[in-house]
Amino acid sequence: MAEPVFGKLALIGIGLIGSSIAHAARKNGLVREIAVQTRSQKTLDRAAELKLGDSYTLDPAEAAKDADLVIVCVPVGASEEVAKAIAPVLKPGAIVSDVGSVKMSVVRQMAGHLPANVHFVPAHPIAGTEHSGPDAGFAELFENRWCILTPPDGTDKTAVDRLAEFWTRIGAKVEVMSAEHHDLVLAITSHIPHLIAYNIVGTAADMEENVRQEVIKFSASGFRDFTRIAASDPTMWRDIFLHNREAVLEMLGRFSEDLTVLQRAIRNGDGDKLFDAFTRTRAIRRGIIEVGQDTAVPDFGRTPAAKGHGGTDTAE
Amino acid sequence: MAEPVFGKLALIGIGLIGSSIAHAARKNGLVREIAVQTRSQKTLDRAAELKLGDSYTLDPAEAAKDADLVIVCVPVGASEEVAKAIAPVLKPGAIVSDVGSVKMSVVRQMAGHLPANVHFVPAHPIAGTEHSGPDAGFAELFENRWCILTPPDGTDKTAVDRLAEFWTRIGAKVEVMSAEHHDLVLAITSHIPHLIAYNIVGTAADMEENVRQEVIKFSASGFRDFTRIAASDPTMWRDIFLHNREAVLEMLGRFSEDLTVLQRAIRNGDGDKLFDAFTRTRAIRRGIIEVGQDTAVPDFGRTPAAKGHGGTDTAE
Repeated sequence: MAEPVFGKLALIGIGLIGSSIAHAARKNGLVREIAVQTRSQKTLDRAAELKLGDSYTLDPAEAAKDADLVIVCVPVGASEEVAKAIAPVLKPGAIVSDVGSVKMSVVRQMAGHLPANVHFVPAHPIAGTEHSGPDAGFAELFENRWCILTPPDGTDKTAVDRLAEFWTRIGAKVEVMSAEHHDLVLAITSHIPHLIAYNIVGTAADMEENVRQEVIKFSASGFRDFTRIAASDPTMWRDIFLHNREAVLEMLGRFSEDLTVLQRAIRNGDGDKLFDAFTRTRAIRRGIIEVGQDTAVPDFGRTPAAKGHGGTDTAE
Repeated sequence: MAEPVFGKLALIGIGLIGSSIAHAARKNGLVREIAVQTRSQKTLDRAAELKLGDSYTLDPAEAAKDADLVIVCVPVGASEEVAKAIAPVLKPGAIVSDVGSVKMSVVRQMAGHLPANVHFVPAHPIAGTEHSGPDAGFAELFENRWCILTPPDGTDKTAVDRLAEFWTRIGAKVEVMSAEHHDLVLAITSHIPHLIAYNIVGTAADMEENVRQEVIKFSASGFRDFTRIAASDPTMWRDIFLHNREAVLEMLGRFSEDLTVLQRAIRNGDGDKLFDAFTRTRAIRRGIIEVGQDTAVPDFGRTPAAKGHGGTDTAE
């Protein structure tokens, strides 16, 4: 096995993503030592039972002390608090990163608190499932998934390269872009789809009882995919919407305008307009299959026999 | 193998659903003879190459003549035309059915044209993929899927039972309800989700070119599931929205009201409201898993190894 990329890794937060990083870093021999921190004693005890780290603490500073790489794996709304807590103890030359689904807000919350002699390289591994907590993690979560790095201008290139190596050896495909661009792209590919999924499942939940039972029964007709997305972690998603507000509201405005056009076409019985709208969307689907982000196999092997634990796509 | 349920089966239309019925009826020995009709010579030739039937014709009346079961497998907007064409030749005692995703409109279009001495039992097998045409069909499409029958009041019970036996032996689970109730339930479980999926993919398609490419690249973050749904057959879906207009507009109104509430919560930074909204939707997901309409396995085995050809859920 190749040399470790880092000595001590500190994971601040040990939910789905944090625990998956722990599994993956260990499995691939990427670090010599893992310190696990979380705010809840119960979660910390569970992390210890699962042997996710080499040391366990409720104190972010204790975990971050002497660490060569600190990865903050908390809901994005808690980023500033963590930055304040760890800043005084950070080792000169350490890399501080995160896994948040929004990046401008994380930079705003953290950058000002971190000392000048550490390297701040925000990251977003685009992977997840609808499950949360330390039991949900697995080493393969990031395999063949994108991990986007958004280093602020002037970030040390060596630090970026080392973090990229860490993610690449975990199995991810690394891409570098600005935090602003990241937040716009993710608003349309991830945040709006999640908001809409939450919304339609909520609309169904408000239906009369006899209809609601049948919504569940006949969910395979399209609704089911939305419920999976809408089962993602509420805290994480609350923070995403609060912290990517501008881009989300901008995209939501476009979405609503477009929906109004379709609604009017239905009301007016304008079949040609509907047909045209439903035809052009096929090109996007073809693009996704061509770049290998999905297969054309019906149902993706959604069969009782298929139990693969592959890299997934639901959360964030 | 058990006795066939019917002598001659006429399939009016031989797309994804028609060809899947042909495969399934043959595989399970449910009919003695299959007559295939479609309006396009090219599709008819392809159906013959695929050996989907025993006879092939462009004339619906010729296919329906002497048939014991006629299943109309065309976009719902073409139902009336088919009813008019086959009515004069129908054998007394024949069962006429369909596979349309809306039922009140099909009843309105067809019932008045059919002679009193045939049994009209509308049906909706809730199964599909995003692929269309006679090549897309496979015998297992309906396995373990619901097939809803919506016989008008006073329909002969024996006829309903025979059609139910046909679908049951194909592998489907049969449910009987009114056409009106069907259209309401499917509006929320299927029609609105499809409309929204088409809409958001359309919104993305309108993005600036550099963003659009990245939407495709990073589609695994949630957007991908929508593109699959939005790749469904445009003609079929145009007709669904035109022919289930009232229920769709009603549900769309509720959806938009709910979305406005979430949008306002984001604008106002109301995290508690978002958290509550995102929490209650998990209960619906649990209901779906409990009734066996999905599994909790992350990613549904969305791995390169998983190539199952299971009953699917996308279209209709």
